[in-house]
Amino acid sequence: MLQNSKLLTNYEGLDTPFLLIDKQKLLTNLDRLRHRIEGLGADLRPHFKTMRALEAAPYLLPNKTSPITVSTIKEAEALASEGYDNIVYAVGISANKLPRVLNLIEKGADLTVLLDSTEQAHLLNQFSADNQCAISALIEIDCDGHRGGIAPDDSKLLEIAQLLHHGAAHFKGVLTHAGESYHCFDQTSLRTAAENEVKAALNAAERLRSAEIPCEIVSIGSTPTAHNYQNLDGITEVRAGVYGFFDLVMTGVGVCSVNDIAASVVTTVIGHNQEKGWLIIDAGWMALSSDRGTANQPTDCGYGLLTDSNGELLDNLQVTNVNQEHGIIEAVNDASINFNDIPIGSRLHIMPNHACATASMHKQYHVFDTQYNTYEVWMRIQGW
Amino acid sequence: MLQNSKLLTNYEGLDTPFLLIDKQKLLTNLDRLRHRIEGLGADLRPHFKTMRALEAAPYLLPNKTSPITVSTIKEAEALASEGYDNIVYAVGISANKLPRVLNLIEKGADLTVLLDSTEQAHLLNQFSADNQCAISALIEIDCDGHRGGIAPDDSKLLEIAQLLHHGAAHFKGVLTHAGESYHCFDQTSLRTAAENEVKAALNAAERLRSAEIPCEIVSIGSTPTAHNYQNLDGITEVRAGVYGFFDLVMTGVGVCSVNDIAASVVTTVIGHNQEKGWLIIDAGWMALSSDRGTANQPTDCGYGLLTDSNGELLDNLQVTNVNQEHGIIEAVNDASINFNDIPIGSRLHIMPNHACATASMHKQYHVFDTQYNTYEVWMRIQGW
Repeated sequence: MLQNSKLLTNYEGLDTPFLLIDKQKLLTNLDRLRHRIEGLGADLRPHFKTMRALEAAPYLLPNKTSPITVSTIKEAEALASEGYDNIVYAVGISANKLPRVLNLIEKGADLTVLLDSTEQAHLLNQFSADNQCAISALIEIDCDGHRGGIAPDDSKLLEIAQLLHHGAAHFKGVLTHAGESYHCFDQTSLRTAAENEVKAALNAAERLRSAEIPCEIVSIGSTPTAHNYQNLDGITEVRAGVYGFFDLVMTGVGVCSVNDIAASVVTTVIGHNQEKGWLIIDAGWMALSSDRGTANQPTDCGYGLLTDSNGELLDNLQVTNVNQEHGIIEAVNDASINFNDIPIGSRLHIMPNHACATASMHKQYHVFDTQYNTYEVWMRIQGW
Repeated sequence: MLQNSKLLTNYEGLDTPFLLIDKQKLLTNLDRLRHRIEGLGADLRPHFKTMRALEAAPYLLPNKTSPITVSTIKEAEALASEGYDNIVYAVGISANKLPRVLNLIEKGADLTVLLDSTEQAHLLNQFSADNQCAISALIEIDCDGHRGGIAPDDSKLLEIAQLLHHGAAHFKGVLTHAGESYHCFDQTSLRTAAENEVKAALNAAERLRSAEIPCEIVSIGSTPTAHNYQNLDGITEVRAGVYGFFDLVMTGVGVCSVNDIAASVVTTVIGHNQEKGWLIIDAGWMALSSDRGTANQPTDCGYGLLTDSNGELLDNLQVTNVNQEHGIIEAVNDASINFNDIPIGSRLHIMPNHACATASMHKQYHVFDTQYNTYEVWMRIQGW
């Protein structure tokens, strides 16, 4: 992978474990979804929660007014400080977070919050009135029973929207997320989940407009459905997060191949247990996370699949167990490990189950671009 | 819990989610194990990996020369920078980490590394010779087949020890860890695991001494076994990590009660789904970790058990599902949630499955001492 001698020196100079990003794969993944969604006539509003690095923002967004999604106020503050100002905070709003929301809006950010209850609508109206600032809000729609939100045909939809529309806050539209799509493993069910997500959002928007409540934003999205929409008429924007890095869960779902995965954890073999058939490595759950997202998929990848340092997949090897700073690699499918091929001191790359979770364990990402021979360190925005 | 008005203001001023430490519980837990181990005539060498905060060090250690264990060079560097200099790095050593080990030793730290292969012994001898610095090493003993290490009766034990003893490095002793003890759920099996750990270490030390190789350190430990040793004759030190915070896994193992748990994640209720019986909270796996350590225990606690903000256990409630920044609380055991008792905006405290993993998701800890009415922020040392 790293033919360039300068890059190789950078790579070898890093202590393991560390998170390596293959920049060309990342850019390809980002372009692929942007072209797809824009080709269907909607905006792409990438979810910043996977990467949370300001250095990634210029690749996620064409310009500073491009729409972006965040999962924490901390991300919004970081983005706004760099002039990225079109932000949806896609976690249900609570009272204690409103002062920081207000602060960002007063500094010029176009920040929109999310809610799904009359209590939150009253709260937002009161706070907006008290501070003479009409805070924009979307109502979360539940399209498949996986998280928050209200059903598109629930009478509360109109009640909450009316409260906001006639109150001091600003009602802006609806947002839904196809949580069910992460449990789809074939094209037919993915397309069904994608259509269902579109239909739920359009249904909600239609009901609002019939009640003469404007619905400027109709926002949908998840990485699995985003790669499977056929028609986005009436949808204003699509959100997706993990599509830049991709991971083994997304491979299992079928929206990428193992070779598309742009993020891996580089580890060193620190022990052999030939009797048990174990390679012991210096990457445990601190480097990988405890996420076992492939456990309920047709192909369980343990705590990750392996490549050698050239990116060649090591067939039939898996990280099968992790402690805090140790991992155990075993052969699966009746294969066995050739210990001579992987001596103590060897470096291996672990492809993650869930890139959002694995990235969250790292303060920084080591970004290698093998086309332009550049090496960068991207700093992750941490906390809430 | 927080009767003091200044502390209450500190608490209420924090945005959720955050990690709260009950300092008095922490100090009680730390004292309990120290008295137990010192009462049995051994040293306690706390494992820094759980807390990784320099502010915690004075409570973990009686003085700057007290022994401590680390799982990363980064922890050792931080501790040494504050003058804590008696450190065991308890993860198998690899070549790329040796320059940082050397650097610490040259600055005066008494840093000891761990290994379990002739390859590593040759490496350490060569590096020690090249740098004219005898690096101290322990050999990892496998007492129950759970991780690295070699069996106490393996011929390689003497081979590796001889290599180090006669080489440029410095052989210092043996170290074992009773990984199996985390799967014990009754007093009898815990005591058996504890005795087995002691026996394996003593057996290894005895073989070495019979071969006229001095064995200065005989190190054992895990939180479950540490609370169950009956006799430590011949053992020089005991290691344990999670015993300060404790957690639901340790409650399941039976070495603490729920009320001893000193670390919890404070979260806000951001939604009600009465139809499904869900409270939606602003703590997901980013705040809790994805660790499901109680899944294989007799009592599965989901992603955590709940107390109200006064520390009262909310019977039959569990965090049953998590997304990145959302959690779902449900009633279990055929109970149901009284939504009026827990309105949107309420704060709840989540006791973690695995405190090491939950703490690792936080950049800082919010430490409340309700006896002395103090509030402190402890910064976690991050990375490797």
